[in-house]
Parts: sequence; C-alpha cells; structure tokens
Amino acid sequence: MIDRILFNGHIHTLNASLPHATAIAISYGRIVAIGTDDDVLPLATAGTIRQNLNGKTVLPGMVDAHVHWEWTSKAMHSVDVETSTKEEALRRIADYAAGVPDGEWITGWGWAQDLWPDRAFPTAADLDAIVPDKPVFLRAKSGHAAWANTLALQLAHVTGETPVPAGSDVMLDTSGEPTGILLEAGAIDLVDQHVPPISAERLAYMMQVAQERAHKGGLTGLHDFDDPSCLYALQILRERGQLGLRVLKQINKDFLPAAIESGIRSGFGDEWLRIGNLKMFADGALGPRTAYMVEPYENEPENYGIVILDKEQMYEAASAASAAGLATTIHAIGDRAVHDVLDVFESVREEEKQRGELTSQRRHRIEHVQIIHPDDRHRLAELDIIASMQPNHATSDWSVADRWWGARSQWAYNARLQIDQGVKVAFGSDSPIEAIEPIPNLYAAITRQDRHGMPEGGWYPESRLSIDEAIRGFTLGPAYAARLEDRLGQLAVGYLADLVVLDRDPYAIDPSELLAMQVLATMVDGEWRYTTID
Amino acid sequence: MIDRILFNGHIHTLNASLPHATAIAISYGRIVAIGTDDDVLPLATAGTIRQNLNGKTVLPGMVDAHVHWEWTSKAMHSVDVETSTKEEALRRIADYAAGVPDGEWITGWGWAQDLWPDRAFPTAADLDAIVPDKPVFLRAKSGHAAWANTLALQLAHVTGETPVPAGSDVMLDTSGEPTGILLEAGAIDLVDQHVPPISAERLAYMMQVAQERAHKGGLTGLHDFDDPSCLYALQILRERGQLGLRVLKQINKDFLPAAIESGIRSGFGDEWLRIGNLKMFADGALGPRTAYMVEPYENEPENYGIVILDKEQMYEAASAASAAGLATTIHAIGDRAVHDVLDVFESVREEEKQRGELTSQRRHRIEHVQIIHPDDRHRLAELDIIASMQPNHATSDWSVADRWWGARSQWAYNARLQIDQGVKVAFGSDSPIEAIEPIPNLYAAITRQDRHGMPEGGWYPESRLSIDEAIRGFTLGPAYAARLEDRLGQLAVGYLADLVVLDRDPYAIDPSELLAMQVLATMVDGEWRYTTID
Repeated sequence: MIDRILFNGHIHTLNASLPHATAIAISYGRIVAIGTDDDVLPLATAGTIRQNLNGKTVLPGMVDAHVHWEWTSKAMHSVDVETSTKEEALRRIADYAAGVPDGEWITGWGWAQDLWPDRAFPTAADLDAIVPDKPVFLRAKSGHAAWANTLALQLAHVTGETPVPAGSDVMLDTSGEPTGILLEAGAIDLVDQHVPPISAERLAYMMQVAQERAHKGGLTGLHDFDDPSCLYALQILRERGQLGLRVLKQINKDFLPAAIESGIRSGFGDEWLRIGNLKMFADGALGPRTAYMVEPYENEPENYGIVILDKEQMYEAASAASAAGLATTIHAIGDRAVHDVLDVFESVREEEKQRGELTSQRRHRIEHVQIIHPDDRHRLAELDIIASMQPNHATSDWSVADRWWGARSQWAYNARLQIDQGVKVAFGSDSPIEAIEPIPNLYAAITRQDRHGMPEGGWYPESRLSIDEAIRGFTLGPAYAARLEDRLGQLAVGYLADLVVLDRDPYAIDPSELLAMQVLATMVDGEWRYTTID
Repeated sequence: MIDRILFNGHIHTLNASLPHATAIAISYGRIVAIGTDDDVLPLATAGTIRQNLNGKTVLPGMVDAHVHWEWTSKAMHSVDVETSTKEEALRRIADYAAGVPDGEWITGWGWAQDLWPDRAFPTAADLDAIVPDKPVFLRAKSGHAAWANTLALQLAHVTGETPVPAGSDVMLDTSGEPTGILLEAGAIDLVDQHVPPISAERLAYMMQVAQERAHKGGLTGLHDFDDPSCLYALQILRERGQLGLRVLKQINKDFLPAAIESGIRSGFGDEWLRIGNLKMFADGALGPRTAYMVEPYENEPENYGIVILDKEQMYEAASAASAAGLATTIHAIGDRAVHDVLDVFESVREEEKQRGELTSQRRHRIEHVQIIHPDDRHRLAELDIIASMQPNHATSDWSVADRWWGARSQWAYNARLQIDQGVKVAFGSDSPIEAIEPIPNLYAAITRQDRHGMPEGGWYPESRLSIDEAIRGFTLGPAYAARLEDRLGQLAVGYLADLVVLDRDPYAIDPSELLAMQVLATMVDGEWRYTTID
C-alpha cells in the first residue's frame, strides 16, 4: 500500500512540528509517513519502491504565484526578442521569419526599449525593412506595449484615425500615422484580435512543453492569470492525465459575470485545477511609466501614470465577487494604485465583516505591490491582504526604478516590509515577463542583485530576505493564497507528495552559490515529473 | 496509516476480479486493501480502528442519478400535498397555513389530480376558501404543473390577458379567468418568480437536513438537475467540510452560455462536486399528457403531447456544448421526444467522430426514456447513449400509462430492453417527484409492483430486472455517467471508500422482503455519515 519510500534525504519540511526529516512514505500521491529512516523504512509493503536520496536536499514543491501560463506556453513557440539591442532583435526576427510560411503571422515577445542603448521605441518601418510580406506582432516584455509591422497594422485596419479604447494609445508619428507601437491592452487588442487563434488542442500541446520546463525548474504548481481559454486547455490535459502541475486559475474581470452566473466560488475544482480570485488591473507598469503614482515620476512632473480601473469600478467588481463567494486580486504597481486598491479592500472587508465572514474566508491579494506609499505600509497587514510579489522584478528593474522613482525606491519591491508585519507573501515570476524558474528568483530575493552581481552589495540591501523567507514565499505562501494550506506548501503527514530534490542545501550554502544550485528531480502527486536520480 | 479496517463482512464488491470479500482497509478515504479477514486484518497500523461487521452485507455506496436537490431540500421545508384526495390536500394546507406568519408565501409540492378520485384539476377557489390572505403556490408531483390561489396570481399579475410563454399554458375558465392551474415551466415561472428567494446560507442548511435523509436511505451521491444556485449552496457546504454526498452537477440550458464563457468542461471539479452535462427538455410528462408521442394518446386522438425544444434547438445546444467539452443530457418522456433526441445525438456523435473523439469521452444521456418506439429500440446502444431511468416511475405510473398509452406500454419504463443490448443504465428517483430512498426503487425494478403489490405479478413482468442489475444501476451506472468509473461504483483497491451496510443480503432474500431491508450504516469517503453500528 506504500507506493514509494524516499530515504537518506536531507528534508526541509517547512512543517513547524517536524522541521527536518530523512524519509517520506507515499501512498496514492499523499505523504502517509515522514520522519527518520528508522521510522519510515519499516513501513514498506509488498511492491514499495525504496529510493535512496544519497543525502540530497528536499524541499516542498515550489509554486509560482504569478504566471501567464497560456502566454508562457505560446511564448515558447514564437520569436524571442528579449535582446540588448534593437539590431539583435531584428536579426532574430529575420531568421525566424525565414522559416514561417507565407501568409502566417509572426508573433514574438520580450522586447524592451529600455534595454536598448538609445531607449527609443522601435517602429513598423524597422520591421518592414526585414519582413514586409508577413504580418509581425511582437509584445513587449512588460506586456503593456506591442510592436507591429505595417502589414499587421493594415490587416487590423489600424490607422491614424482609428478610435482608441480609453486607457490605451496608438503611438502616431508627426504626420499622424501609427508608428507601429501600441500601448496598453485596449490598443494592443486592436491588432491582437486579428492574430489567428490556435486550437485548444494545440495550446494543450504547447502547455505540455512548457510544463516540462517548469518541472525542470522545480515547480510543482502555478497561479495563472490568463483567460478561460487557458483553463479550457488545462482541463484537456487534466482529462488525459497529462496535467502535472497544480494550477490555481484566476478569473479576469471580463469573465466575472459568467462565473457568477455559473455559480462558481473560489476553491471550486480539485487540487490540480482550482478556481482562484477575480483579477483586475488598477494601473499600468513601471517600464512605460504607466504605473499610477501619488507623486509624479522623476523628471516628468506632469506624469502620474494611468488608471486602468478607478476605485469605484474596482469596488463594484470586488464587492459583487465577494458577495458571490469569489475573492479578488488586483494588479497594482504604483503607490497610488496600491493605495486605491487598499481603499477598495477596506470597503469590501467591511462588508464581509457585516456578513459575519472571517478575513481568512476570502484570500484577497494584490499583485506586485511594486511600490507602496509609507502611509500605506501597514494596511495589507491590517486588512489581511496577501502580497503577491516577484523578487526578480526588483533585480530586473532596479535601475529603471532608481531613474523614475528616485529615493521612493526604498519602498519598492519590498517584501521585507510586508513579511516583518506578518503579511502572507506569495512569490512568482510573472512569466513570461521573467523566466519561470524559481531558483534565480530565490537568488534575487536574498541578494537583491541580478545574475551579474549588480548592483554591488544589493539594491537597498536592508530589504533582502533570508533563504527561509524566500522559500516560504514559493511554498507556504502560494498554498495559503490558494486556500490549500491544509494540503500543500509543506511536507507533512496527510499532505500531497509534491517536492523537489536539489543538488545542494540552499540553507547551508553561500547566497552567491545559489544560482548554481540544480534541481535533480521534481515530484508532483507522488510521481517524478522530472528526474535525474531515478 | 490505515485509518479503519472493516472485517467479518459479507461484501458484494461489484468488482469483476474479486466479487466477494469480507474485509476492507481504508486510508484517507480510499480503499487500500480488500479481501479476506486474513488478508486485511494484519495490515492494521497504530491507531487503526478495527470494526467487526458481524456478517452484515456491504454494497458500494448508492448514487441517485436523477435528483432535483435544491427542490428536494426545499420540499422538506414546505407543505406536502401528495394525497389521495383533494380534501386531504386542502386539510394539510390549512394546518400548515395556521403556522405561517401573515404575508409569507405558503409553498408546497406533490399534488397529482390523477391520484384523486375525480381526476379533475383543482382550482384557485379551492385554496381561497381555506387560505384567502396568504399567497399559496403548490407544485404538482410531476413538476409540470402548479396550483396557485387568487392572491398568488394577483401578486404575480397573472390574468386572463397575460401573455404565456411558448410551450406552456395558463388554464382559463369559461369566463376567460385563470383557474389557478399553470402548465409547464414558462407559465409556472410567471408565479414562481414572485416567491421570495431564500438565502444561499438557508438553502445550505436545508441541504444538510436533506443530506441526513439521503444517508439514512443508503445514498452516497447524487446527480443534480437544479440551477447554479444549487451548485453555489453545495460549495458552501463543501468549503465547510459539511458536504457528505458526491454530487454531479448538470447545467440547465439557460446557463450554457455562461458555462462555455467560463471555460468549464464536463468533469471540472473534484470527486465531491463535479460538473456534469448540459441538461435540456424535449417534452413534458405523462401525468399532464404533455409527453411528445409518435401516435396520439389513447382516447385523445388530437393529442400528441408538446414539444419544449424542437430538434433544431436541441441540436444547436448539444453541438455547441460538445464542441466546448460538455456532454449533454435531454429529458425525453414520450416516444417521439426520445426519437428526436436520438436524431440529435446521432448528428452530434457524427461531429465528435469527425473531431476524432471516442464516444466514451462524452457521456451523453437521456433522462427518463419513459417510452421508446420499437423502431428506435436499438439506437441508444448504437450511439452509446446512457439511459438514465427511474424504476419507481413505472410502479407509480403504471395505471396512468395503461390508460393513456395502452398497449404501447410494453415499451415503457423498460430498462430491461436497454440492459439486454449493453446500454449503460443509471437509475434515479427524480426526487422530490418520488422518494429519494433507493431501496423502494430497487424493489420497483425487480418486481415492477408498487409497495401494495400492485399490479399482481408485476406490470409487464418480462421487464423485471435481477437484483444485481438493479444495484448496478445505482452504483456502476451513475459512476460511469459521471466519468468516475475509475474511482466510484465498486469496492476495489484505489477506489473511494463509499459504501452501505445492510441488515440483510439483497442477493439472497426473496424480492418481497426487499422493502423491509434496512440501511444500518452509510460511509462516504471513509467516514460513517449515518450509522447504527458504530
């Protein structure tokens, strides 16, 4: 009845009552015993696989609390234009285009003009020069901008006269023609809606490929922020027994009415695929300076960023969702956006209190909390709001943050501030905006340095986390946010057998060695999904 | 690690490779060993509860494949007007009304004019005479008619001039005024929408009461046919750990667009609460002679019954649902309705074949199949359509069927015909239309006699089932229909620990003794939910 016993391991359980163990017994995907080898090995029954971990380190499976999973899966099947020069991006596009049949769209992702020497937006003309005859549509790394060639704009009927949805922009040149750059979702969708859809079957296949990468990186689950098409493809994998990651599926605001009409509450589903929170946007992002700020951007005294949804709009949706059994999470990057979102949650919490609900019943969260105003710094704790943060954003963005937010950056990317107040913190990558692998993200959290060691000594090093805090952010934190803390996030009897085996002990090594740490094996539901040790 | 061992039992497993056993070991709600006492008792670990069944009989938990669960739960909190005379119904209403505060609605359910001596529809005036000052709204046992008093009609603004939705009728007297009888959903809803809603919390409470009754009857699960409000209340119980039945939730047609937009496929959920099929209606029912027939009703040469949704409407919905990953089930009582539904499924199966899908991927079903035309008798088997039938309807309706369907009744309520062709059959009660307890339903299936032994020798006795066939219809059949045949419906290693303990062996007793058989205990997910033996 015991399917497998792992023994002679160095197991960090994250379970307070038994923090360390050497052996785990697994039955039907669940941990049925954990302790010393002497405790656990005698439990073996006929057919039990005994596996010697040779002293390797084991952690609970890591869960990425912020992933665009459909987009991540598709990005692995399109051209990667995350480059340090525009010329390199254009060279990759030309190479990729050579293999694309006539008439098909070339899609890609990852460019960021801030990473290029002149920091200037590229143009349709740049693309037309290398690919005039196939439509090209390339999303920015931030997700808040896109770059199209002339043919793509023509197919989408985007001209200088096209009405642009509020909160977004089609950049025009001095003659009033589109430059090829589209800012924010409304404008991006003008072209995106013309990119031919891929079938659910094809998307499910792409997800299998992306899943392999996630397993190799040590992930056993993720929280997804894409649309119901993503949920749909995940169910296809689930039905075939091919889903090997546990997914919490957020519901984007456009789909809230359908979810409410269907009677679905947060938590519906199973341990593999489960409904999470309503998701909506308060503001833009730092890169394009659209994050909504209390004070203007440095050297841009007129620019406070943009509002995607105002407080009243957010309140209406979050209040309706809460009354219908759905928790909410809101993207808030700028400190004014975070402030407004906290006001919204304050009102919603008051309603929940009047209905006699505990704050633990609705796992409300804020995505990013990228910068917080000092006056608001206690409010997540006071309102029991989860901080869903991305340590790797700090190390990707620090120079941009210094430039546009100046000294305010001491309040930026600051999980330390929230953890010290007891706020539940869930960490993620925002993949495909950053790489989905959690180990570089752990490194970012504990060093606040990028992989080249910049800035020296770490950016605002007082905000560095301990390795334990960082690991909790990828295990216990996401489990709590998914309301699965009774089954996931730690290794204990009765918990699901999701774990990773590492080639060294992250608790024992120097932080500088962390980037070299390798995932040797990843187990989900008692099965090795990636392994070099079997 | 073994939570419980049941031993010294007389276990019918329904598992072909080990049909009989005496002991079962359970861990985390799952059967981890089954066999003889000698096989299983030695597996006990520290803390294992050993429970001697003293030779009692065990079956897999029974699942009712057709329940209106919200309605059942509410019906237990309203006046029961299932009586053999109108006078008795009126007496119960008067008694009940005395305890209802002024201004509140009196709702009830269960009347059937066919059970009353004169077989005449009652009137609003009958009710006005005993309850003039509180609105009264009483659903017929068939669910296809309702009886209201004048105050209820006034509050709902129903007059002789009110436009009536297609496929339904407001009965009028000779002066053109409503008689108080409303036929079919459209007309019933004219009044029903004015009955004040009950809160989700209150409904969840009502469901807990109904759940106790279901457990006591030996049920461990059900397939529900009510609206998303039912799903919603079930989730409240689930979140609190109070849901003790496994529920497959069908989606009524009005809610199909929302389900598709939400990206939900059949099977989404977990073993407790799981999305089933799109559900719609082809026709009415036998009682009000609205079932849609190939030939007219006996002695009503103009009456072929009514169409609720025509073939084209059913096809459009079923085809869209299938393409979106949702199976379909259609209520079809009359032989023409069954015929049309089979045509619809033939088209949908063709589309599925062209998409490369196996018939086993979509568990399409027909609810009731109450009478089938001999020309169509092979078609469920050919199209791999599940027959969801209610043996107790035969024994409640046989005299009515003889009266209105005459000799055609040899093809009515005929599960025997389908089983002999290998069709998967799932049995249910249609509660609250019939009692939810499965034992009287098993009795009806094997005797085709009502509890008074009528008709003598059984109605069309050649269509009687064996006790094994009847039990399979309440276990393996519903498990297959829910696509849970790998986890439910039989007692085997790896299956969920849902079972019932009986005071005698239904396989060994005379059919006449079956109605006296008692459920001693009901276990769901390894826990006794009702027990007299603990």
